[in-house]
Amino acid sequence: MKWCLVASLLTVLTSSQGILTTLSQTNGKYKYDYATIPFLAEVFKLVVSSVFLWRERKKSPPPKMTTDWKTVRLFPIPSVIYLIHNNVQFATLTYVDTSTYQIMGNLKIVTTGILVRLFLKKKLSNLQWMAIVLLAVGTTTSQVKGCGEASCDSLFSAPIQGYMLGILSACLSALAGVYTEFLMKKNNDSLYWQNIQLYTFGAIFNMARLVMDDFRGGFEKGPWWQRLFNGYSITTWMVVLNLGSTGLLVSWLMKYANNIVKVYSTSMAMLLTMVLSVFLFSFKPTLQLFLGIIICMMSLHMYFAPPNMLVDMPSTVKSDPESLVEVPVDRKTDSR
Amino acid sequence: MKWCLVASLLTVLTSSQGILTTLSQTNGKYKYDYATIPFLAEVFKLVVSSVFLWRERKKSPPPKMTTDWKTVRLFPIPSVIYLIHNNVQFATLTYVDTSTYQIMGNLKIVTTGILVRLFLKKKLSNLQWMAIVLLAVGTTTSQVKGCGEASCDSLFSAPIQGYMLGILSACLSALAGVYTEFLMKKNNDSLYWQNIQLYTFGAIFNMARLVMDDFRGGFEKGPWWQRLFNGYSITTWMVVLNLGSTGLLVSWLMKYANNIVKVYSTSMAMLLTMVLSVFLFSFKPTLQLFLGIIICMMSLHMYFAPPNMLVDMPSTVKSDPESLVEVPVDRKTDSR
Repeated sequence: MKWCLVASLLTVLTSSQGILTTLSQTNGKYKYDYATIPFLAEVFKLVVSSVFLWRERKKSPPPKMTTDWKTVRLFPIPSVIYLIHNNVQFATLTYVDTSTYQIMGNLKIVTTGILVRLFLKKKLSNLQWMAIVLLAVGTTTSQVKGCGEASCDSLFSAPIQGYMLGILSACLSALAGVYTEFLMKKNNDSLYWQNIQLYTFGAIFNMARLVMDDFRGGFEKGPWWQRLFNGYSITTWMVVLNLGSTGLLVSWLMKYANNIVKVYSTSMAMLLTMVLSVFLFSFKPTLQLFLGIIICMMSLHMYFAPPNMLVDMPSTVKSDPESLVEVPVDRKTDSR
Repeated sequence: MKWCLVASLLTVLTSSQGILTTLSQTNGKYKYDYATIPFLAEVFKLVVSSVFLWRERKKSPPPKMTTDWKTVRLFPIPSVIYLIHNNVQFATLTYVDTSTYQIMGNLKIVTTGILVRLFLKKKLSNLQWMAIVLLAVGTTTSQVKGCGEASCDSLFSAPIQGYMLGILSACLSALAGVYTEFLMKKNNDSLYWQNIQLYTFGAIFNMARLVMDDFRGGFEKGPWWQRLFNGYSITTWMVVLNLGSTGLLVSWLMKYANNIVKVYSTSMAMLLTMVLSVFLFSFKPTLQLFLGIIICMMSLHMYFAPPNMLVDMPSTVKSDPESLVEVPVDRKTDSR
């Protein structure tokens, strides 16, 4: 199963992303403009996909490439959804603190399941639904604030708007994923051609972000292209390449696997990052991290293991404790 | 399913036990000798079982009652195991703090599953094994120390002996349950006759405990029978009756259901107590309690739901996202 390999690779790279990003900081701060990272990652993905498409076109049969406007016009939609999502995220954070936001982010796992069911008409067994809920519960468990941690805001004390926006945010994030899956599976165009369309719009939207930042900042630091690589180190470049690579893997999964595989992959990455942080950043391991890992592993097994492996009873006789019953040779029964 | 009803009743009564015990305290202290409670509960169970047996013997056919020594001599064994368990528990608490001990107590769920498999030869499906582990994980999650709680000892900092003894304690506790199930199912004797044997030894062992306490205290407060009801209030009597009733329900479950049903019942009771404490004792509800409840509910469903309900795919076609694919009427393929 090739998708298993791709999903595992995505887990490792997504996990490295968090660690590389932390390593790219100097004294806890970014010396570079973080907004340049996603832009350069889009450009990287665009270049890689173009090279692959160019190679594919030299082969026969040539790759399928739908170029009519009716199809191409759908490709900016994921970027538009992400743009709306970013704004909703920003609004949510005015009502709730970041740790509550992080906890609510796990809702995305469940909303992805629901949207996959509604829009992509994928049928899931009861056990798979339970697995999806357990994955969300497991990732949330691992994030439960430990005893003695500094900030201690109650999760249940934010205004209701905060929770509504958090749910909206989870829906939008899931929607972007589900829409991308729909786009990639819509026809059997070459993956690279679909990528090129997706990343072109991605690059444009990210560039627009940089331009807007420039306007907001009144061009004090000069236009974005002049300061694009300011403060970049080897690690920063690794962050870019890593983000670009995870993007390419996600595209592959959207076309040849599905959103739920991606959700498992990134959830496992979150746990892997926490485990690695124990060793790399002397992050204190907590009981809740340990419990969260067990829950997510169970969920993974419940979702992907073949059903007959899970519920088929072992072939031997279903015995009641009879097997331990002593042979009643000298039993007297008092029954006067 | 009668056992479902008995198990639910056991959950409610076990949960009331914790609450009644708290209510029976005066200014956070017991005005009565707590060791008298289990003794009186054993006497209560003995009386109730005797009455039921007496009524049963007036009917025909009369109840089966094995009275030979080879069978009767097995009935003190659960009491002996509990006695050893209590001592191991005491030893464990010299190495670990009570909250670590409480967390380790959840291991009992898993050891019960293992001993039921080993000694009672009950076969469980993979999913049922996962459900058992999840039940233990769920109850543990609900007990994770919250942010801002006073004591903040690390769970991983006790000496190794503490953990070994904790595991031994979980095994002994499970063994007592499994052995009782074996005894009750060993033959088709009347449940009440079996109860009488079990509780007679139970009463004797609990009386021995009171006598030992008297010797340890140098009879300063007089012999136990003179101060048996000292400080008893209505609530204290309710604690006794409640403990006795849960004992009778457990016996019933051991004979007509099994240890795993009992484990689910008491785990759910633990969660119910925490939820009730939110209302009764203004206990602050935590995210981890909420997560623990979801996990345990999932586990319950995984263990007891009929397998075909869990994994059978809905009858409609297993469709891939194809159903959303637009009909490619005007697709142009660029393939020069």
